[in-house]
Amino acid sequence: MKAVVLQNGALNVEDIPAPTPGEGQLLLSTRTCGICGTDLHAKHHLGAYLEGLTAAGNGLPVDVKGKVVMGHEFCGEVIGRGPNTSGRIKDGSLVVALPYITGPEGAEYVGYSNRFPGGYAEQMVITERLAFEVPNGLPARQAAMTEPFAVGAHAVARARIDPDREHVIMVVGCGPIGLAVIAALKARGLGPVVGLDFSAARRGFAEKMGADEVVDATRETQASVWERLGARKKGRRAVAFECVGRPGVVQSIINEVPRGAKVVVVGNSLEPSSIDQVRAFNLELDIVFVANYTPAEFSGTLSDIAEGRIDTAPILTGVVPPEGMDQAFSDLRNAERHVKIMLSFE
Amino acid sequence: MKAVVLQNGALNVEDIPAPTPGEGQLLLSTRTCGICGTDLHAKHHLGAYLEGLTAAGNGLPVDVKGKVVMGHEFCGEVIGRGPNTSGRIKDGSLVVALPYITGPEGAEYVGYSNRFPGGYAEQMVITERLAFEVPNGLPARQAAMTEPFAVGAHAVARARIDPDREHVIMVVGCGPIGLAVIAALKARGLGPVVGLDFSAARRGFAEKMGADEVVDATRETQASVWERLGARKKGRRAVAFECVGRPGVVQSIINEVPRGAKVVVVGNSLEPSSIDQVRAFNLELDIVFVANYTPAEFSGTLSDIAEGRIDTAPILTGVVPPEGMDQAFSDLRNAERHVKIMLSFE
Repeated sequence: MKAVVLQNGALNVEDIPAPTPGEGQLLLSTRTCGICGTDLHAKHHLGAYLEGLTAAGNGLPVDVKGKVVMGHEFCGEVIGRGPNTSGRIKDGSLVVALPYITGPEGAEYVGYSNRFPGGYAEQMVITERLAFEVPNGLPARQAAMTEPFAVGAHAVARARIDPDREHVIMVVGCGPIGLAVIAALKARGLGPVVGLDFSAARRGFAEKMGADEVVDATRETQASVWERLGARKKGRRAVAFECVGRPGVVQSIINEVPRGAKVVVVGNSLEPSSIDQVRAFNLELDIVFVANYTPAEFSGTLSDIAEGRIDTAPILTGVVPPEGMDQAFSDLRNAERHVKIMLSFE
Repeated sequence: MKAVVLQNGALNVEDIPAPTPGEGQLLLSTRTCGICGTDLHAKHHLGAYLEGLTAAGNGLPVDVKGKVVMGHEFCGEVIGRGPNTSGRIKDGSLVVALPYITGPEGAEYVGYSNRFPGGYAEQMVITERLAFEVPNGLPARQAAMTEPFAVGAHAVARARIDPDREHVIMVVGCGPIGLAVIAALKARGLGPVVGLDFSAARRGFAEKMGADEVVDATRETQASVWERLGARKKGRRAVAFECVGRPGVVQSIINEVPRGAKVVVVGNSLEPSSIDQVRAFNLELDIVFVANYTPAEFSGTLSDIAEGRIDTAPILTGVVPPEGMDQAFSDLRNAERHVKIMLSFE
């Protein structure tokens, strides 16, 4: 089968063996798969990324010199199944799934494995009990947004924002993850939500996702925004979502938040990065690190999209065939033009 | 009046002018005052400590070359009052108070100010509305423990431990703050609580404060304790309280906690210290920084002590006159012998 293979920092279209579904697994014909910011990082920093996951006890060691087929924001059609599957989802159904799978050697991440190809391949296997049927009529490209938007839902759940208390909420970085956080906040009626970005295009996307206000980070400091929106007032709490994922951004947020703020770290800085503990202490901060999502958050997000509480359409800025993926990885560095590019096998 | 004055890293008994109570302030004859771990740090790192507070917008700048009379764990007798006081507390009453005061130039910390002497002086002024009368009969030396134990109450409140969920709670460092955290946890029926310390004496104090188990940090790793107590099991949450306050300790906790743990940072590292963000992210940690306490937590702690829910008696290991304070600061470095030494003016 055709697949976009990552090896030694390069993406190439190759013909590789199709996977065989194991116990409790479904075989999918991949329809589409989004390119995640983590994939962009992992293309160049695969070793460091996987080392972090492995050190934290997540997933199996991956041979970073071996082939990896990335892609964990996929939607596909069920075309087969392994032993001991329930039959809950019929052949021909369109599904999305959490990208976790158990192989003969243990748990792995679909898309960051030498053993299981991700959604950048024409066929892939997924875990049946982590799969959800796409409600009738929702296009595959919208359904495939479930995964990145579930990250937003999880971030907002982990932030535990008390709806009975006044808040000022700032989303720092309006790339795909920041937009997912904004969408999840607004789907829950939380706010006011301020989206902060250097890019005018990204600020425009933030408005489309429902941000109550957008701020040009080149023109106003975070400290000034907190002040202007009354986040320093007693009883009103500042909540900042870090959705950039570059070294130093968490610290730059900490340097400007008011006392008692909550900083929710959604952006995964894959390069070493540290936080000044003394300032965090003096400001009595809560720092909440957020990764992944639960199956309930994932299926809830699919419903939010299918039922129109979250509109993913505005952020899909490109669709490419396998042969266009290397260019798409470069194009995604242009924040003025792209948010989400999807690989299509259709 | 007699006072123990800090200047240029040295403590000396000096005769300094007695303070005059201002608007809304009470004048106290100090009975006793505990030596806080922060005072030990501040003796040598006053500049860095105050710089951190000032940068975070807490309190007025302090002239670090000038005289500072420390002491914020005090209990004293009301002997006078300034204008616009309510008269709620009569002359002759024994009181404790939150160590915050407003002078002509703004808010200050009692005990870290050039303008207001703290409890290391024979007389001091306090804010009437932040003062609480000691319930009849509670000795001054126990009442003066309200302040450090309120830090424990606040840490436990900030940790937001759901009593309906299973937890494994580790208190790293069983000095005065760790013991206060243990006492606050047990007063609320939370646990199991494991106290971890290198010192056999401190582990003994932890048991006296109600720790369900104590661990010799030279014999067992934190990772092993979490494992042994089932903190890695699904649905059971690990909560670690950092009560050491030295650089690197938060990171050493992060290196051993299980996924999804909450790390409550109570120890104030006054020296620069940083946290590895990537590991915190991969483990999805909550890091909660804790400083000070609210008036309600302070008065609640006074009640806990007065009504026997917290017994402070075991940790009072020494009482010294003003002339013995310099030696007491040295003696407190011996963890095998001392927890809390109090200055006495009686």
